[in-house]
Order: sequence, then structure tokens, then C-alpha cells
Amino acid sequence: MSGTDPITRALEEVRAAFITDRRGEVATYIPQLSATPPDLFGISLASLDGRVYSAGDSDYPFSIQSVSKPFVHALALADHGLEAVLARVGAEPSGEAFNAISLDPGTGRPANPMINAGALVITSLVTGASPEERFARIRSMLEAFAGRELALDEAVYRSEMETADRNRALGFLMRSAGSLTADVEETLDTYVRQCALLVTTRDLAIMAATLVNGGVNPLTGEAVVTSQVASHVLTVMGTCGMYDYSGEWLLRVGLPAKSGVAGAVMAAKPAQFGFGLFSPRLDARGNSVRAVEACQELAERFGLHLLNHPGRVTPATYLDATDRERRSSAVRSATESAVLDARGDAILIRGLQGDIGFAVAEQLLHSFDDLLAAANASPRWLILDTDRVGLVHPAAAALLRATARDLAANGVTCVVADRTGRALVEGAPLFPSADAALSWCEEALIALATR
Amino acid sequence: MSGTDPITRALEEVRAAFITDRRGEVATYIPQLSATPPDLFGISLASLDGRVYSAGDSDYPFSIQSVSKPFVHALALADHGLEAVLARVGAEPSGEAFNAISLDPGTGRPANPMINAGALVITSLVTGASPEERFARIRSMLEAFAGRELALDEAVYRSEMETADRNRALGFLMRSAGSLTADVEETLDTYVRQCALLVTTRDLAIMAATLVNGGVNPLTGEAVVTSQVASHVLTVMGTCGMYDYSGEWLLRVGLPAKSGVAGAVMAAKPAQFGFGLFSPRLDARGNSVRAVEACQELAERFGLHLLNHPGRVTPATYLDATDRERRSSAVRSATESAVLDARGDAILIRGLQGDIGFAVAEQLLHSFDDLLAAANASPRWLILDTDRVGLVHPAAAALLRATARDLAANGVTCVVADRTGRALVEGAPLFPSADAALSWCEEALIALATR
Amino acid sequence: MSGTDPITRALEEVRAAFITDRRGEVATYIPQLSATPPDLFGISLASLDGRVYSAGDSDYPFSIQSVSKPFVHALALADHGLEAVLARVGAEPSGEAFNAISLDPGTGRPANPMINAGALVITSLVTGASPEERFARIRSMLEAFAGRELALDEAVYRSEMETADRNRALGFLMRSAGSLTADVEETLDTYVRQCALLVTTRDLAIMAATLVNGGVNPLTGEAVVTSQVASHVLTVMGTCGMYDYSGEWLLRVGLPAKSGVAGAVMAAKPAQFGFGLFSPRLDARGNSVRAVEACQELAERFGLHLLNHPGRVTPATYLDATDRERRSSAVRSATESAVLDARGDAILIRGLQGDIGFAVAEQLLHSFDDLLAAANASPRWLILDTDRVGLVHPAAAALLRATARDLAANGVTCVVADRTGRALVEGAPLFPSADAALSWCEEALIALATR
Amino acid sequence: MSGTDPITRALEEVRAAFITDRRGEVATYIPQLSATPPDLFGISLASLDGRVYSAGDSDYPFSIQSVSKPFVHALALADHGLEAVLARVGAEPSGEAFNAISLDPGTGRPANPMINAGALVITSLVTGASPEERFARIRSMLEAFAGRELALDEAVYRSEMETADRNRALGFLMRSAGSLTADVEETLDTYVRQCALLVTTRDLAIMAATLVNGGVNPLTGEAVVTSQVASHVLTVMGTCGMYDYSGEWLLRVGLPAKSGVAGAVMAAKPAQFGFGLFSPRLDARGNSVRAVEACQELAERFGLHLLNHPGRVTPATYLDATDRERRSSAVRSATESAVLDARGDAILIRGLQGDIGFAVAEQLLHSFDDLLAAANASPRWLILDTDRVGLVHPAAAALLRATARDLAANGVTCVVADRTGRALVEGAPLFPSADAALSWCEEALIALATR
Repeated sequence: MSGTDPITRALEEVRAAFITDRRGEVATYIPQLSATPPDLFGISLASLDGRVYSAGDSDYPFSIQSVSKPFVHALALADHGLEAVLARVGAEPSGEAFNAISLDPGTGRPANPMINAGALVITSLVTGASPEERFARIRSMLEAFAGRELALDEAVYRSEMETADRNRALGFLMRSAGSLTADVEETLDTYVRQCALLVTTRDLAIMAATLVNGGVNPLTGEAVVTSQVASHVLTVMGTCGMYDYSGEWLLRVGLPAKSGVAGAVMAAKPAQFGFGLFSPRLDARGNSVRAVEACQELAERFGLHLLNHPGRVTPATYLDATDRERRSSAVRSATESAVLDARGDAILIRGLQGDIGFAVAEQLLHSFDDLLAAANASPRWLILDTDRVGLVHPAAAALLRATARDLAANGVTCVVADRTGRALVEGAPLFPSADAALSWCEEALIALATR
Repeated sequence: MSGTDPITRALEEVRAAFITDRRGEVATYIPQLSATPPDLFGISLASLDGRVYSAGDSDYPFSIQSVSKPFVHALALADHGLEAVLARVGAEPSGEAFNAISLDPGTGRPANPMINAGALVITSLVTGASPEERFARIRSMLEAFAGRELALDEAVYRSEMETADRNRALGFLMRSAGSLTADVEETLDTYVRQCALLVTTRDLAIMAATLVNGGVNPLTGEAVVTSQVASHVLTVMGTCGMYDYSGEWLLRVGLPAKSGVAGAVMAAKPAQFGFGLFSPRLDARGNSVRAVEACQELAERFGLHLLNHPGRVTPATYLDATDRERRSSAVRSATESAVLDARGDAILIRGLQGDIGFAVAEQLLHSFDDLLAAANASPRWLILDTDRVGLVHPAAAALLRATARDLAANGVTCVVADRTGRALVEGAPLFPSADAALSWCEEALIALATR
Repeated sequence: MSGTDPITRALEEVRAAFITDRRGEVATYIPQLSATPPDLFGISLASLDGRVYSAGDSDYPFSIQSVSKPFVHALALADHGLEAVLARVGAEPSGEAFNAISLDPGTGRPANPMINAGALVITSLVTGASPEERFARIRSMLEAFAGRELALDEAVYRSEMETADRNRALGFLMRSAGSLTADVEETLDTYVRQCALLVTTRDLAIMAATLVNGGVNPLTGEAVVTSQVASHVLTVMGTCGMYDYSGEWLLRVGLPAKSGVAGAVMAAKPAQFGFGLFSPRLDARGNSVRAVEACQELAERFGLHLLNHPGRVTPATYLDATDRERRSSAVRSATESAVLDARGDAILIRGLQGDIGFAVAEQLLHSFDDLLAAANASPRWLILDTDRVGLVHPAAAALLRATARDLAANGVTCVVADRTGRALVEGAPLFPSADAALSWCEEALIALATR
Repeated sequence: MSGTDPITRALEEVRAAFITDRRGEVATYIPQLSATPPDLFGISLASLDGRVYSAGDSDYPFSIQSVSKPFVHALALADHGLEAVLARVGAEPSGEAFNAISLDPGTGRPANPMINAGALVITSLVTGASPEERFARIRSMLEAFAGRELALDEAVYRSEMETADRNRALGFLMRSAGSLTADVEETLDTYVRQCALLVTTRDLAIMAATLVNGGVNPLTGEAVVTSQVASHVLTVMGTCGMYDYSGEWLLRVGLPAKSGVAGAVMAAKPAQFGFGLFSPRLDARGNSVRAVEACQELAERFGLHLLNHPGRVTPATYLDATDRERRSSAVRSATESAVLDARGDAILIRGLQGDIGFAVAEQLLHSFDDLLAAANASPRWLILDTDRVGLVHPAAAALLRATARDLAANGVTCVVADRTGRALVEGAPLFPSADAALSWCEEALIALATR
């Protein structure tokens, strides 16, 4: 294909639409950040196959800042589990700014891991025998998400340490309340280091893609965290990732996301891809002006909202009218053929297709009601042809298993036909094709009839 | 099938698991509510086909209370659009209790439509020439969501009006700040009436199912609101629906939900089904103890979390190795047959299957890279067989259109084969079967070759 | 004296110094108030004899607004006592604006009677069988403080009722919390009426003078409230009277005061006089710009600060070196004269002068140490000449009584000489002059010596 | 006097009344403090002559803690003046606990110098080239107030430094907001040192007495601070000294006071004496249970409330009916005698007595109205006999001067008679006795009449 592909073109169009917007201010509270050229603007999209599409300044390295928070949260979750982490840092959006105090009046527990107070406690929770080891593990985790080694911007680190008094204050407030048990200065140092790691929009896109790929880095194939940890991290990003714009962001964009004070926004489309954006000028809430606009445009253009209605669930089955007539190509004797000619509904074939979620499984379950109601007392076989089935959600799998048990209790034997040998119904006879399955069922029917 | 179905059985098992939990207190701040038998416990699930599965007290009528908020929010959105509503009521979770003040210091704008202050403004926004008409429209909206007429509990209404001083205070605070422009007493009266409408868990399940069915009531087929309005309502439920437990709820259960002080919880699994639960005893945050527990159990058992990883995206295409050899069954002359025998990659057939989201479309797009790279300068045809395709997400559709344009620019003609006449690529020649499409492409190839 | 007196001249100078200051804005939240000519500026000072000195617009009637609060507080204290009132409304300054919510999180008790929330509860506490009677009592109380009948500005009353939504909200908030038990609308109506009573700076000066005159109106001589109630009211004015400027006001001006939104400031110099000021333009805290400036100037010019050091306490006694030689003018026999000639320190005379506070009493007490130490075992008499004594503070009186008991236990008889018959030491022999007392002591001495 | 004096007895009675109250808890947040014997209870009263009366454990040394705040505030005021200090630390009571954050949202300025945040800034404001010098100056200031050297409790200092995280947090919060410009750790170290200085109730009584003695230590006679600084410090103690009990304390006790977490309360009766109390068990607000009770009892028993009504102001003049007849004892010729016989009101004598405040001066001023109105055009003399005058308040002095100028303008010559040579009216002829003044006036009258 000559020229750029449609995805790259879309990113370039969106970039062009907002490149002229010069509203907002480069962050100054970390002096070193204020030196960033304010007109930079990069957008990257990473697929779950690890392909990255980019527009603009996608290779400019900037400090990751608060976008590090979800990944260190992931590390803490991996180290201690959800309950232990929740006991120390809540998961409630606070409707407040990134540097809000937002500590529980009684316990000093910070509201969530995305505000600075919560992020400090999360950093302190990372397992490690020393601050050095703790930071090394954090850095490794971020590198595993990015799929490459990340440099540390020493100038940003030093600059931020010098102006970290508010975070230091949060640390001491929590220490006095008992909600931070680690050394404040050590924790702060580690936190500021993690914030000073250098990334590009390309990295952020891959990092986001890793989160929505069940924790598996699409570039390296490494299972960085479990899919459960990734799901928890995405949830907290969904409600708390964009500071006091989080609610409106989710309403307008509908993607779990995280912003950083250097001008980064990372957003993730579950099961589809990751976004990384960068443009240094921030709005009053501390989010990059252009990155927010670009995400809103991309979300609208591509219909990315998490809660958009995907349309009517497709019928689960594609074989219906014709299966009653179907016969296997096996050569039969006349007697056997007569049995088969009279088989009626004794052997049913259902071809399933598409992704099988709870709704589809429930439809399928329901479709047996009439069949079973109309069934006579004679034995029956149900062949499920699953060649065209995509994903099977856990809820659906559980339901199918239960359904198979119910069918067995009613004298119906479930048989699965799948070219790839996938056993959709555990314990059911499995054949490589519907024809093979049908032949087996016919044998059984003949055996019974001629016994 | 004898006995109950697996879904009903699952609901009954979950109900049995928590029926012995008698923690929490029936709400007393509305005196009438305190008369509710505390041991009631009902769970219902409604499919997007309108089938309802229930366990326990699913027909006990209780006042809907705060669960009315999302539906009146939906009505206000339908009346005025997102921007106009957002201008009056924010969308930020406040991390605060249901009766928190949470007004913007400058403007008095309430934080979100799920806290009482926000709900009062939302109610006041409903179009209507009189309070009576406004309430009539609200009632109709809730009835359209439920799919049946809803009675009003006069005793609860009167009881709540007598103890509505805090809501009255919120109303006057907002009126003095200019964020509520309607009459306080009239607004309060309408709000308290909406809260006193009687529903069952069955109703709540249908109402939730309507929201995740793109606004179409699965019982009545009525398009109650647009899918966009439904998406907005679900988003706000997702971040603000469970008061100051909203964040942790989303983390643990992962479903948009709304609770009410009578003991109700309504939860919705996008594109799959709706839940309605009821058990009067409330925890300290005002959420039904058992309903929360049951939802957590159901979410875990059925893997319902919105951000759970669904597993690896399936390959989009199912025909590959064999299509190059394929020929239409049309009878050809020898010359024509020779042309066809030599066609090489001039005619490609791709069978697509499953749901086509952005990720699948991107894979497909990418799969053409190699093909195009290997292509010679001669004209080519690409047949997309979409018979097995389920949903096509908007993002994917846009990408496919752009891809088709790119292909055309490279001399490749896209042709669609679809039994149901669905034109996946707008403007492409459309045939009822791959064979018919192939025949058409062959004719074109022969015509060119023999010109 | 021709022309004006020095006090009037001082008031006029101060008024002239600030009349050109046109900063601030006339209150607009009560629409009717915004019609007040903004350049009005009046200052009045009322002495404890009821003389009023004024400069500028001292007869312009304006609505009393929040300056009514201390007087209704006084009425509630008179009706129920300090403890009962404190149980319902606190006495803590809140550092917040006049319309702040400032309710105790647990009980809803408002912080103090000077913020609107507290004032509403105070108004509701006034005894009365009906709202009419309650308002009648409030009006009578304010009239008793002013010493004349006060008209009600109907236009202001109606205007404020229409814009009283924030106060209405405070009422309902407190009602829902249980801290306001009366009907909200009735309480609000009474409160808004009390705020709409018309006063002049002259009235305010008299009202303040009444407070610092132990509750006795200096014009009418009526004991409006007890001196204890007046003291409580002044204390709360001292810490809470000027909204969130109260602390700095007390630092700079040092007088209990109360401001009102119409532009009034009332200030009181304990035991000395009352101020009333009026100028409609308000600063950001809701206090009259010029009135605050004028009070600061007057306080500095006249050294009015409550906690200014008054200078060294004066010696309590003015007779010392000469009293040992002193003899009564009574004619004595030779024997008697001989006794008297040898009396040594047997009869002491102490002339006391000035106000006798604790410090003076303590000095006096201490002055006896040496005398008693030097005394022999023979009986002695101590004559206290109190003709020149002004005020005797309760603490001093108690101390003097205790001292007299101690002296008696040591054989010293206390005798009081006072022209006006004031018995400084209860139970001590009392004579109209030091000479008469001396004569009586001499008789006693002679009687003992010649027995 | 045998046995104890009445003041000591009163202190002992009050101590005995509350010694059995064992409510409250010894502070534990500074571990070292929790080792204090909880039953200690001392009360001291220091007069402005430096006499100290005590009951109970008045010599037990305890760390001064927050009671140091007013004195360091005094030092900062002495170093920089009121305006400069106010610009950095407000003077508004916050109605909050001692360790509240209470910083101005915009500027980070702490609410007042009595909360920890404010005290830290105040400590940082003390002039000094090094932390050591700064602490040395603070220590010297406290020692000057106490009149003796104060030891530092090293154990308490170290214990508090280890648990000072909340104060450290306040420091960093203010530093990040720009309201604390000094080094946080150095400031904290100095502050914790100042808190660890050891005092007794005796010391606190003297320190308080110094404040109400115009800044002059009654023991040493040293002018520690100006009376203006002392007045400012007392005012802030009055509104903010007892944490969130400050308002109710002022209502009930009516004395500027300061409490400390070791169990100390220091209270000051303006112009009269100072109190020091100590009992370690604290109430929920952090004030010593018994010390608060004892102060309330002492205030009530001795009528100490600052705003108690002192009673009716005494007439300023004691000579009235007889002065018109009075003649000097000078020998006159017959002609001269005739002139004097006919003098009428040409020579007036006024004896003034007591303290002369504004109210008395105003009475005096007013008393001339009638006299002047009745006067003929002939010259007149007014003799003011000030022998019995105590204090003359500045406001009264100003008024008397203005009055004298007015009288002169009306042809009345003011003449002062004062044994001690005090010139109450500047510029007026001054004589050692009324008789000498009268003689001078008579000469003048005769000279005019016989010219």
C-alpha cells in the first residue's frame, strides 16, 4: 500500500486538528519541566500484535511522571494482592486535584492510588530489601510494560526533589497518621525517581496495550502481570486516572486513562489497543490540553467508549433449517439408512459462531427449551459445531457446562465438533468435524435402534 | 428440561449463600421504610431477549428511591443533550455520601446526578409545563424502562415529604447559589414522588437490561432512549452509582450499578443482561448488605467485570491456504479457463468471522501489507466473505472503508459476499455468496485478459 | 461652651478622614438594600449617662440586619440561661463567613450565635406562644435596648424573604440534623423581621452603651437584661461579631462589636460607652469599609483596646506616715491621754482611694504582713477610711472580707469610716468619718487599759 | 498573720475541689509525656508586685509545650512589628484542633499563631543568624518572662522530635505553599526545643503577670516587651489560646489563656495578676481537665471575667457644694477681701478622684456645660485638684486637654493642683496644693478687678 495506512492517517488528521491549539501552560512546579518545548505533540497507537502507529513527536523522550502510578500500583498488587493493597490505599475517586490531601479522617488512608498521597504509599509497598532494590523492581516493571530499557532523567529527578515539599508533607501527614509506615524521604526519593523515567508516546501506547492485553506485552510476549492485576489497574485508571476530570473524561472518552504532568496521556481500549499521547501544555486540572482533545476526537471518530452499545447480539447458531435433513457421508446399510431416515430430532446439529458471552450462552440455553419440550422420550444427541466460535467468556463456559449436565440428565448427549480440538463442553465426545461427529451419533442411534 | 435452569439455580445458590447475613439496618430516615420486613431478599436477571430469571422475593414491590436517578438523568439527557445537562450537573464522583452537599464552591453546581443534590437539579430539568406534567413524564420514562405501569406508594411519598428537610436544604442551598432555578418545593415534591414509585427486582433487571440493550426495552421492544443516552447514564452509574463505595464496587464487581435506600441494587452487564436485587438491610454507606455481597459473588462466579481481559482476539479470517486454488462453478470456455488457471493472486477470497472490532480490523488491514507487497502490477480483486461475521464495531467499519479506498488506489477492487446482503464495505459490489462473487471477478479478469 | 465639644469634634475628624474612601460595594443580595445611597456615613457615641455625640448621618434609618443578633441572643439567654442556650448553639468562632454552614458534623449544632445558622436557632429559642408573640418579644427587647420604638422596613423584609434561600437552606439543614426544632419558615420569617427593624447610629450607640452599662439602658434607666447576660453577649461579640475578620478586629480595635450587612457596625467599650456607625459600602467579608476604618482610628486615637495596659496600679492607701500621731479631737482625761500617748501601733488608720480591684486588695492584704509581724500581743484596731474609694470589684471585696476575718483571728478589729455609709468590710463597725472611728477605737483602748 | 493568707487558702480550696477528678488522659502522642505522674495538680497566682501564691505541685517542672507560643509570638512581634507578622500568620480563630491544617487555601497562611502551623511560622520569623542563635533568643525571651533560667528537658525534646511527623508535614505543606520560607527541619527543631523548656506553675504565673503588667516582669522589673506587644499577645490568647474551646472558655472564664499538652494552663487577668496551673490529664480538646475546671471556679469566685460589668462609674469630683465658699488662707486687704466676697463663680475648684477613664472625662466635660452656660462674660478660673486621681487613661487625657483648650477659648483658665506635681492638663499652671492654686487665682482676680 503506497503512502501511510488509514490508522496512521487518522492519527495524523487528529493531530493536525489540534496542533494549532496553544492554550494551557507547561508545568512549572518542577522547574526542569518548564524547559520542555511547548509545541511538541505526539500520538501513538499500539495494537495487541505489537504494531505501533504514530503521528508527530512519538520518539521525543519525556519523564513519565504520574503515568507511572498505574504500573507501580500493578507491582504492589502483584506483590501483595488486592485486599492487602486496598487496606492501605482506597479505590474511591475523590473528585479532587492530584495533590489533594484526601486522607481518611480516621485512618489517614489515602483515597486512591492515583493521587500523590496514594501513590506514595503504593511506592512504599513495593517489596524490596532496600530503597535501591525497591526502585530497581519498579524500574524493571515499567520496562517490562514498555518492552525496553528506560533511562532516568537525572535533571528532572533532582529538580523535582528540590520542589517536592508538598509530597513530603503528604508523606509526613500519612506517617503521623500511621497510613505510611515506611521512611518518608526514602519513599519520596523512590517515587520521584519512578516519575523521572523517560518514555515516548510509543512506549506509553505499548504499556497501555499490555494492560488491555491481559498483562502480556504484545512486543515481547512477556506476561508482565496477571490479567486480574491488569483489570484492577484499568479499573482504578477508569475512575481516578484523570484527576478531577476523571468522571467527565469517562463520560466523554470512555477509556481507562492516566495523565502525567509532563504532558502525557495514556489511554487503553480494552481488548483492542493502547494509546500514548504527549503535548506539554496543561489545563487547569493538570491534564494535557491537546492530548485530552485528541482522545475525545479519537474516541468519537472510532466509537471507542467502553459503554457504547455494540449493537444487537448476533444469533449464536448458523445452522438451523437444514440440519435435520443432514446425513453423514458414511456408507450405511439399508437397515441403517432406514433408522436414520426415521431419526426425526434424535440428532441435532448446532453450528455456533462468533464470540460466546453470557448473553449468547443464555440464548443457546433458551433455544433448547423448545427442543426439549418437543422431544419424545427417546435418546438424543446434540452436536455443537464450534469451528466458527471466537472467544468463549468464562460466564458462558460455566453456563454451557451446566447446560450440558442438564441435557445429560434429560437423556441428551452433547457432542462437540471442532477442527482445532477445543473442548467447549468439558467431558463431551470431541470430533474434528461435524461430519465425524454426526457419523458417531448415527452409529449410536443405529446401535440402539437395532439392539 | 426438568427443574430449574442453570441461571435460576445460580441465582438461588447465591441467594442462599447470603440469606443468613443479617448485618446492617433497615433505613429509618424515611419512617415508612422502616416497616419493610428486613429479611426479604430477591435477585433477578433479565436477558436482552427479555427473559427474566429470579430467585427469592422477586415480586415484592418496594419504592425505587435513588435507583430512579439514572432514569430521570436519561430523561433530562434526552430532553436537553449532554452538554446542557453537564453545564448544570457535573459528572465527577465526589467520594462522598448520598446526601453530601458537594456543590462547586463557585457555582453551586452539584458534583454528579447520583447524589441527592444533583438528582434534584436533574429532576428540575425535565421538560414539562407544570409539576404534574413533569412528574407524568418521569413516571412514563420509568414505566417505559420497566415495561409496565408502576404504582406510587402514597405512604412512602408522604412519609418522605415529612422528613425531606435535608433534601429541602440542598434545594435551597442550590437555589441561593443559582444552580437550581426551579421552585424548591415543587422540585422536591416531584423528586420524592419519583422515589416512591414501586418496583420489583424483576422490574429493575428489565430496566438495567434496557440500558445495556442500547436503550431498547427487551420486553416491549420500545426504544426508550437512544443508545448514546444509555451509554452516558451507564457511565455515570459506573463512577457514582454506589455512593462512596462506587470506586471499590467498580473494582470488585466491575458493573455500572445504582443502589437505593429501600435496599435495592440495580446492576448492568453491558451488552449482556441486567440485574435487580433487593434486601432492605443497609450498610454504613447506605447500600444493601446482601445485594452488594450477591453482586460480588455473581461477578466473580460469572466473570462479569467490565475490564476483565476477554482473552486473545481471534483471527479474523478462516479461509487462507485454499482460496488461491478456488474456482467458481461457472462453466468456462477453454480460453477463459486458461486465463483463470494463470490468475495467480489476481483474485483473493477472505472469509471473515466473529465480531469485527478495531483490533480485528487492524489485523485485517495489516494482513494486506504482505499481499500487496507481493502483488504485481496487474489488476486484482479481493472478495470478503462476511457470512460468519457477527457485530461490526463502528471503529472497524471506518477502518474497513478506509482500507477499501486504499486498496482501490492500488488497483485492488473490493467485493463483498454476504448471504444477508449486509454491505460491510460501502460501495463495493455485493453478492449473495462467495461463489457468485468469484464468478463476477473471474468474468472481469477474463474480460481484461482477452481484450 | 461655644461650637461643638471635643468628643463631637473627634468623631467629625475621624468621619472626615474616611468619607473619601469609596471602596467596597453596597450589599446586593437583599435587593432592597442596594437602593441605599452609598455615600451615607454616620458615627455616634453614647455615654453611660445617655449623652449621645454624633457626626454625619446619625439619624438616617437603616435596617439593623445582623446587628440584631446579639440582642436576640441576650433575649434567649434571659429566657433560658447560658447552659441551655450553649447546648443548642456553640460559642466557638468559626473563622468563616456570615453565611457559612459551620454546623457540628455530629449534632448539627451551629458554631456560634453570630453566624446566620446560629442566629436562626437563637431566634427559634425565644419564648413565645406563637410566631407573632415571639417577634413581639424580640422587637420589645430591641426597643428596650434602643430606648425607643423601632419601625419595621416592610420593603426590606419582603425583599429579604424573597432572597432568603440560603438561610432557608441552613434552617432545613439544621432541622434535618435535629439542631433546629422549630418550624423553618416561621423561624425564618421572625428572623427576617428582626433584621428589618430600622435603627440609626444613635440607636446603635445607645444599644451598645446598654450592654456595657451592665444591661441598664442609660437613656431610660431600664434594666433590660442582667449584667451577666450583657457580659455573655459582649464576649460572643468579642470573638465572633465581625465574621471572619473577628480575630483581626479584636487585635486591631480591641472592642466587642457586631456588623450588619446594611453597613452598620456597633462597638462597645466596656464600662465606658457605645459606638454606632453606618456606611453602606462593604468589604469582601461583609463589614462596612468606612465603619471598620473609623473604629480602628478611634480605638487608636483614644486607646480603647480592651487589653491595652492601663498603666501601673496606684497605691491603695494615701495615709501613712502621719496616722500614728493622729488623735481624735475628743476631750480626754489625763489618764486617758496617757494611754493614748503610749498606744504605739495599737490603732492604725488606712485611707483607701481609687478603684479597688483584686490587685489593690492583694497589695493591701500584703501591706498588713509587716504590720502584723511587728505587732505585739496587745489588741489592735485598724481603721479603713474608704471615703475616696471608687469601685470595689467583687474579687477585692471577697479578699477584704477574708482579710478582716484573718485580722480578727489575730486580735485586730477592723473598723470602717465612710461618709456615705458604705460597709466595705461587712460586719465591721461603721462610722461616718475617720475621726469618729478613731474616737471609738480610743475609747476601746482606754477601756481595756484601765480595766 | 498566722497560717496561710486568704489568697493561698482560696487556691487550696479550689485545688481540693477538683483534685478528685481523674477524668481525661495524659498525653501520649509525645511518648515521654505519658510518663508524667497523672495526679499532679498545682495552681499559682502571681501579683503585679511579683508575689506568688500557690497550692499543690507548684514546683514540679514540666515542659512548657504550647504555652511557649504566646511568648515566641511576642518575640516575633518585637522583632518585626504587628503588620509584618500578620502578613505571615493570621489572627483568626479557626474553631479547630491544635494540629489542624487551617491554612489559607490561596496563600497557605496559617490561621493564627496558636495552632501548630502558625507557631512554626512564628518560630521561623524570630531573628537570628543561625538556628542556634534563634533558639538562644527564644530561650532568653521565655526566661525573661519567667524571671529565671529555664532548663531544657532533653528526653522530651528527643521524644517529640521522633514523633513530630505531623508538625513536619505542616511545615512542608507551608513550605510548598510559600508560607514558610525557612528550612523545615531547622524550624521544627527550634520549635520542639522551645516546647521542651521546663517551667513550673509558679513560672507560668509570673509569665502571665508579665503580660498583664505591660510587658514588665514583676519579679525582675525588666521590660521584656512593650505594652503594645503584650496587648497583642493577650488578644490572640483571648481568641485562640484554648484550641477549639477558646470561645467557650472566654465565655465562661473570660481571661486570655493558653494551654499546653503537658497539662499546663496559663491565664492572665489584665492589670491584675497571672495564673499558672498544671495537671496532666487532658480532655478531648487537649486542655487539662482540672486546670480548666479550676480556672472556671476561680473566675466565678473572684469575678474575673474580662467583660463583667464593674458597676457604676463613680462621680469624678468630690468637691461640689462647698467650693464656692472656699477662700485661700492668704491674708488680704479689705478691698481684696471685698473682691473675693463678690467673686461668685469666678473661681471654681474641682477635686477629682479615682481612675480617670474616657467615661469619667466625658462626665467631667459635660459637667462644665451648665457652669459655662451660667457663666457671665467675666474671666474665670477652674482649679482641678488631682491629688486623689489614680490612673489617667490616654483617651481621658486627650479629652481633658481638648476641654482645657475649649475652656481657654471661653475665657476660663485651667489650673492644676497636685501634690506630686503631675500635670494632668499640659500647659496649665501647676501648684502643689489647692490652697496655693486658689491663692494664685485670687491674686489674678484681684489684679483684674482693681486694675
